[in-house]
Amino acid sequence: MHSVKKVLLKPSYYDKWENFKISGWVSSNRGNNKMRFINLNDGSTVNNLQLVIKGEKFDFGLLDTVKIGAAIEVVGTLVATPSAPQPIELVVSEFKLLKNTEDFPIQNQEISLELLRELPHIRHRTNILRAAMLIRSTLAQEIHRYFIANDFYYMSSPIITSNDGEGAGETFNVDDNSKNPFFGGKKSTLGVTGQLHAESYAIGMKKVYTFAPTFRAEHSNTKKHAAEFWMVEPEVAFYDLNDVIHLADDMLKVVIRNTLAKNKFEFDFLVKHHDQELINRLNKFLDNELHIIDYKDAIAELAKVKDKFENKDIKFGLDLATEHERYISEQLFNGPVAVINFPKDFKAFYMYQNDDNKTVAAFDLLVPGIGELIGGSQREANYDKLLKRINELNIPADDLSWYLDLRKFGDSGSAGFGLGFERLVMYVTGVDNIRDVIPYPRTAGNIRM
Amino acid sequence: MHSVKKVLLKPSYYDKWENFKISGWVSSNRGNNKMRFINLNDGSTVNNLQLVIKGEKFDFGLLDTVKIGAAIEVVGTLVATPSAPQPIELVVSEFKLLKNTEDFPIQNQEISLELLRELPHIRHRTNILRAAMLIRSTLAQEIHRYFIANDFYYMSSPIITSNDGEGAGETFNVDDNSKNPFFGGKKSTLGVTGQLHAESYAIGMKKVYTFAPTFRAEHSNTKKHAAEFWMVEPEVAFYDLNDVIHLADDMLKVVIRNTLAKNKFEFDFLVKHHDQELINRLNKFLDNELHIIDYKDAIAELAKVKDKFENKDIKFGLDLATEHERYISEQLFNGPVAVINFPKDFKAFYMYQNDDNKTVAAFDLLVPGIGELIGGSQREANYDKLLKRINELNIPADDLSWYLDLRKFGDSGSAGFGLGFERLVMYVTGVDNIRDVIPYPRTAGNIRM
Repeated sequence: MHSVKKVLLKPSYYDKWENFKISGWVSSNRGNNKMRFINLNDGSTVNNLQLVIKGEKFDFGLLDTVKIGAAIEVVGTLVATPSAPQPIELVVSEFKLLKNTEDFPIQNQEISLELLRELPHIRHRTNILRAAMLIRSTLAQEIHRYFIANDFYYMSSPIITSNDGEGAGETFNVDDNSKNPFFGGKKSTLGVTGQLHAESYAIGMKKVYTFAPTFRAEHSNTKKHAAEFWMVEPEVAFYDLNDVIHLADDMLKVVIRNTLAKNKFEFDFLVKHHDQELINRLNKFLDNELHIIDYKDAIAELAKVKDKFENKDIKFGLDLATEHERYISEQLFNGPVAVINFPKDFKAFYMYQNDDNKTVAAFDLLVPGIGELIGGSQREANYDKLLKRINELNIPADDLSWYLDLRKFGDSGSAGFGLGFERLVMYVTGVDNIRDVIPYPRTAGNIRM
Repeated sequence: MHSVKKVLLKPSYYDKWENFKISGWVSSNRGNNKMRFINLNDGSTVNNLQLVIKGEKFDFGLLDTVKIGAAIEVVGTLVATPSAPQPIELVVSEFKLLKNTEDFPIQNQEISLELLRELPHIRHRTNILRAAMLIRSTLAQEIHRYFIANDFYYMSSPIITSNDGEGAGETFNVDDNSKNPFFGGKKSTLGVTGQLHAESYAIGMKKVYTFAPTFRAEHSNTKKHAAEFWMVEPEVAFYDLNDVIHLADDMLKVVIRNTLAKNKFEFDFLVKHHDQELINRLNKFLDNELHIIDYKDAIAELAKVKDKFENKDIKFGLDLATEHERYISEQLFNGPVAVINFPKDFKAFYMYQNDDNKTVAAFDLLVPGIGELIGGSQREANYDKLLKRINELNIPADDLSWYLDLRKFGDSGSAGFGLGFERLVMYVTGVDNIRDVIPYPRTAGNIRM
């Protein structure tokens, strides 16, 4: 069995490939009772293969009944058609209708993204969702390939945990229905991050990463938030803030470049039908070197143009909003920027405490068009400083005694970051609602299928 | 920064590599106040790099205090030592103690696996756990590489779901602490499989796979069961039973072969210290072609030698136990075997119903030394037959209406399988307790860290 994507990528190779066999689904069917043109999609790309069916051996009565979505298998001769809109077509010699459809719920491509959300089991069979989901898969696979190529250990942090990494509190509880609580009555929640456990493996394995689902029970109903989403979290022992910023920049650039190459047809489709500026925006990131700016310097720059912003109260201590982030990356640098050394008050307990006693060695990686894409930090490796911060923030230190203990056992520091994977998919596809870049989105009140 | 694994793999390349810089952790420290031998492990392999420290510039008083587990950074000249037990050593020119340890809880390698389970945040720093965990990571990465190379779509099936795929019932419930149930009071459990959702994507994407955590609230306390484990579930549209059996066999062979090559030192260690027969057992699988035997023929073969078994009641309807499975793969075929066409009574509702009305197009892949490693099936694509089976088994059809609907919309059949990832790691490492092949195991009553 062959793939539509592969033959479309090199159409000139395939002049007169006989006995070419392919299966897939019908995306359109037109013609008359002497000749039919059927577009076949096999899931490998948004693009279709045009089937040409003519000759007395075919049952044109049957062919007329073949509906959008029907499963078919065909054999034929692949021929280059340089003068036609499509680069190749398949002149069919055998046609098999494997399964027709009844009342396929998606009859045309104009159906709205909102309506498609009611059909998560079918919507990937539209061009827009197919393009987004194919790119999603390539991005995920390229992330694994990047870490494999760079000798990272793939870490399975636990999903059910008694630690809530950020101390954020908005977690899901887990238990079974039996009379005895499954975990003996101990706190058992769905993890909001794999970072703390990944840190324990970085000490010993040196370079590790997680790529796994994480969960937040946020009742907010926005385009950006889902209750279940995937996170990529590398953690590297002996790395400092500067090292990990460059890891983040390099990983993103390699992964996005490879994805652009592998999903050419999907990006062509998105630019044509969904977001003209998509490739230009991505190139602004890919073609420009990363800048690094200290948070306090970024604040000074923002203060100069404070009238541009809705939130004009620009001073040390401001938690940057998207409007500020976009100004920094789009206006100030016109490319990717890492803002570093944030006030400790709005960052997590585990971050490395700078000597000024006010800031931590954290970074946010901002990219043109979306703002923050990645957040990370060097971790505090000093037991006493870490414990003091945990106590200041009233986080129960008992729960974290194992994490504190790491600092006693040859932990000379590590650094890492978190990338919300769906956020990356949104950025790379230009699709602006998280519900449309994950197959079965879970949000407050919604657990469809 | 360099990696111990890479230099140990090609020691002869590195005669006199000056200014070689490496960081890692001390695994032993011996010598006197004129010369010290420190073994450094950097997490890339179980093997260590021997550091030779001599000369007046070093502080031998400090060197004497460097404990097992301490983090160090060294620069030196890498020299080949063909006559010594270790192939290369590093003659150190600069030594930096980054962080010593206090009372490192693992002082020798003889500590038992049971005791190590109390220290999941540290135990990967022993040779046995390090070997198992490094192989685990390679296996996972090779699985992704296999599917990438074969043009599979990486599917994110939802984790929180209102469907319990197998109808098994032993599921965890998920909710938050708020007054309003997060999902509006709808059933919300942790998925026991990603298969049903993956099937929906196979129809449209053709070749898909999941690789994600799954959950079962089994209170049983065995070596094989964990409440949280990772599953690999490919699903391919247009595939039948035979196609998917060969996919399973090929995937396992490619993944295991590549892992053997990439983790040479870890396998050497395991064979020497843990399981002499490990490689021979794996080769029995790798070097032998897959056999396929019908369940009823397997029963006939087992009946001939029924006195060998604890369960001697060998007849059609028997759910094969490990002793039967191992006899079939080890004695009958001395290699991998797919047993096919099982009685429908002990298989899941979604399996393709054979014409005999008694069996389903399912398979179990048995391998020497462990028994069943993979289970899978062709799926029932006929709406009426599927609905009838769902009703016979008293599964609420309403919950599955979306899954049934797939059969109306161009589903001409698909086939897939499930591989319990930890089961694979146990098979490939010879480590026989699931608690020792996953970083932070979750079992009934145990949610350590």
